[in-house]
Amino acid sequence: MLNFEYKNPTKIIFGKGQIAKLAQEVPADARVLMIYGGGSIKNNGVYDQVKNALASHKIYELGGVPANPEYDVLKRALDFIVEKDIDFLLAVGGGSVIDGTKFLSAAAGYDGDPWDILKKRVRTEEGEGMPFGTVLTLPATGSEMNSGYVISRKETGEKLSSGGPGLFPRFSILDPEVVRSIPPRQIANGIADAYMHVLEQYLTYPTGADLQDRFAESILLSLQQTAPKVMADETDFDYDAAANFMWCATMALNGLIAKGVPTDWATHSMGHELTALFGIDHARTLAIVAPSHYRYNFETKKAKLAQYAERVWSIHDGSIDEKAETAISKMEEFFRSLGIQTKLSEYTEDFAGTGEKVEAAFSSRGWDGLGEHRKLTPAEARIIIEMSY
Amino acid sequence: MLNFEYKNPTKIIFGKGQIAKLAQEVPADARVLMIYGGGSIKNNGVYDQVKNALASHKIYELGGVPANPEYDVLKRALDFIVEKDIDFLLAVGGGSVIDGTKFLSAAAGYDGDPWDILKKRVRTEEGEGMPFGTVLTLPATGSEMNSGYVISRKETGEKLSSGGPGLFPRFSILDPEVVRSIPPRQIANGIADAYMHVLEQYLTYPTGADLQDRFAESILLSLQQTAPKVMADETDFDYDAAANFMWCATMALNGLIAKGVPTDWATHSMGHELTALFGIDHARTLAIVAPSHYRYNFETKKAKLAQYAERVWSIHDGSIDEKAETAISKMEEFFRSLGIQTKLSEYTEDFAGTGEKVEAAFSSRGWDGLGEHRKLTPAEARIIIEMSY
Repeated sequence: MLNFEYKNPTKIIFGKGQIAKLAQEVPADARVLMIYGGGSIKNNGVYDQVKNALASHKIYELGGVPANPEYDVLKRALDFIVEKDIDFLLAVGGGSVIDGTKFLSAAAGYDGDPWDILKKRVRTEEGEGMPFGTVLTLPATGSEMNSGYVISRKETGEKLSSGGPGLFPRFSILDPEVVRSIPPRQIANGIADAYMHVLEQYLTYPTGADLQDRFAESILLSLQQTAPKVMADETDFDYDAAANFMWCATMALNGLIAKGVPTDWATHSMGHELTALFGIDHARTLAIVAPSHYRYNFETKKAKLAQYAERVWSIHDGSIDEKAETAISKMEEFFRSLGIQTKLSEYTEDFAGTGEKVEAAFSSRGWDGLGEHRKLTPAEARIIIEMSY
Repeated sequence: MLNFEYKNPTKIIFGKGQIAKLAQEVPADARVLMIYGGGSIKNNGVYDQVKNALASHKIYELGGVPANPEYDVLKRALDFIVEKDIDFLLAVGGGSVIDGTKFLSAAAGYDGDPWDILKKRVRTEEGEGMPFGTVLTLPATGSEMNSGYVISRKETGEKLSSGGPGLFPRFSILDPEVVRSIPPRQIANGIADAYMHVLEQYLTYPTGADLQDRFAESILLSLQQTAPKVMADETDFDYDAAANFMWCATMALNGLIAKGVPTDWATHSMGHELTALFGIDHARTLAIVAPSHYRYNFETKKAKLAQYAERVWSIHDGSIDEKAETAISKMEEFFRSLGIQTKLSEYTEDFAGTGEKVEAAFSSRGWDGLGEHRKLTPAEARIIIEMSY
C-alpha cells in the first residue's frame, strides 16, 4: 500500500426531504448567491424547495451556468458577487454548476487575474475561498464531495482544472428524489461517468491495498446492479436504486478509493479531446476510449484486469490473459446495456484522422506522460484512439 | 436506504515514516500535552519518533493512561492541563489513550463538574473541545477517526460514553510499522474488535442500502484475508497486511458504513457486562456473545445472515435458514482461528448465574431495549448469555 493523506470535511445530508435542512446549514445572516444551470430545477420542484427553505435568507440568483462551465459567464458572476457583497454561494445543480461555484469561491478572494487560478493552477488552501454548499441534482461527477473543478474558456479553447483543500463544499444535500426527473440519457451518462471514475483509480497495477480494491469493486458491482433499475421508466421509480446510484457516484470520486493506490486518468485525458473535437458527451467519450486503452496497455494492466474479472464479473475460469480480455468485453457490454456506444464511428462519420489530431494536441502541450506509469506518449494515444474507431 | 448525515473532518496521515509529519501538524506555538499508556511506546520506537518530530515544540508528558481509561487518572491530568496552560493534546496509543484524550479535550473547556459530561452525556459541539491529534499504535477501536469515547470510573463502577462533532481528532497518524511489535493476543483482539464493529452495523435487516452493505462486506472479507498474515510471527512481518488491518479497523468505525442503515450494538452491551464481571478482554466478550445473539434473534436477522453467508463466505447452496445458520458457524470458526474462544465456560469456571446477573444489571438501569429494533429485553439478554455458556 502506498503512503497517503486523506481529509474530506464535507457534510453530506442525504435522503428524502432533506433540502428543507438548507435553512440550518446556510448562515442566517449570509448574503447568498444561488447558482444554477439551464433551468430544469424550475420544472422538477427543486427550485421551489430551495427558495422555500431559504425564505428568511437574503438570496440572489444566477441561472444559466452551462455544461462545461464557461469562464466568461463566471467572470460576470464575479462582478455580481462584488456588487451585491455576496458572502455565501449555493450551487443547485450537477457537476458543471458545482464546478463553476468552486471557481467563484476560489476567485472571489483572489488578488489578481482570476484566469491565473486555472492557468497557473493556484491551489485554494484551507480557510481560503468563499464558503459554499451544494444541492445536487445529477449524480455523476462526485464534485459535491471533492475539492477539484474544471472550467472551460471558449475564447482560447482551453479546458483547465484546479482545486485545493479550501474548496470542499461546507455541505452537500443529496435527495435521491431528484433522479426521478433526470432524462434517461443523462442517467446513463451519470452511471458511466461514475463507473469510469472508479476504473481510473482501480485498473492500474496491484499494490496490496486490499480494502481500497474491495471498496472500488463494491462501487462497480453496485452500479452494475443498480443500473437497470434506475434506467427503467420513471413510472417505476425505485427510490432505493436512485439513492444507491447517487451514493455510488459520490463515493466514486470523493478521494477515498484513490488513497494508497496509483491512479490512471489517461482515459479522461483522451476522452476530453473527443469532446473538444466532436461534442460527444463526456461519459460517452470514456466508453469509447477505455476498451482500447486497456487493450493497448494489456501487459501492465492485466493483473488488475483479471482481478476485476474475478471479483466484479465472477469469471473464474481461464488464464490471467483470458480473464483480463473477457473483463474488457464485459465492460463494453455494460456500457452498451446503458445505450452507450463504444466506438467512435458510432458517433461520427468523420472519425478519420482523429488519432493524429489527438497526438498533435497532446504534443503541442508540455507532455509529461499519461497513465499510472506516466509513460504513455502522444504517439501511443494516437494508436489507442485509432483502435477506438 | 434510511436518511443520514455524514461528516468526518479528521485528517488521516497513513504510511511508513509518517510520524515525522507531526512537526507540520501540531501548531508551532502550541503547548502540547503528550498522552500515552503503559509505556510500550518506549520499547517500540514510537516514543522516540514522536519526541524527535516535536523537538522544537513545547511538550509535556502524561503516561500511564490505563486500558478502560480511568476517570481519576484523567481528573488529575485536567489539573495538570490548567497548571501548565496546555492548549494542544497529542494521544500516542490505542483506543484507551485516544478515548481518554477525547475526554480531556471535552473537559478542558467545560464549565462544571467534568463527570457531568459523561453522566448527562454532554455533547461537544463543533468548535468546542481542546484541539488534539493522535498517533495510533494499536488498530482496533476506530477511535482515531471518530468522535466518541468511553470512560470508566472505578469509584462508582460506571463505564459511560459521550462524544460529539467537536471531538474528531484534527489528525491521526497511522504507521503500519507499529503492528510489528504488537503481541499476537492484542492483534487477535484488534481483528475481532474491528470485525464485530462491522457486524454490529451490518447484521440487522435489509434496507436496500446496497453500497453500504458491500463496503461492510469488503471490510469483513479483507479482515478475514489479512488475519492469518498479521497473526504470523513478527519475523515474517508483512507490511501490506499490517497496513490493510490498520485501515480496515479505522474504516470499520469511522461512521461511513453505519450511514443509511440500522445498527444493533446489543453484542457490545452484553459483552461489556462480561468484562465487568470477569475481566475478559473486550473483543473476546463479543466473540462469546455474538453467536448466541444471532441465533436467538435468528428470524429478524436471517435475511442479512444469509446475505453474509453468500457474499462473505461464498455459501450459495441451501435455504435462507441453512445459509444463515452456516454463516454463524463460519463466524465462530473465524474467531477460533484467531485463538479466541467463543464460549464463556472456556474463560471461567464460575459462569453459572451470569445470565441472571446480566439481566439484573440491565434491569437496574433505565432499560429502553437493545438491538436494531430496540426491543431486546433484560430477560432475553439473560437467555442469550445462558446460550453463550
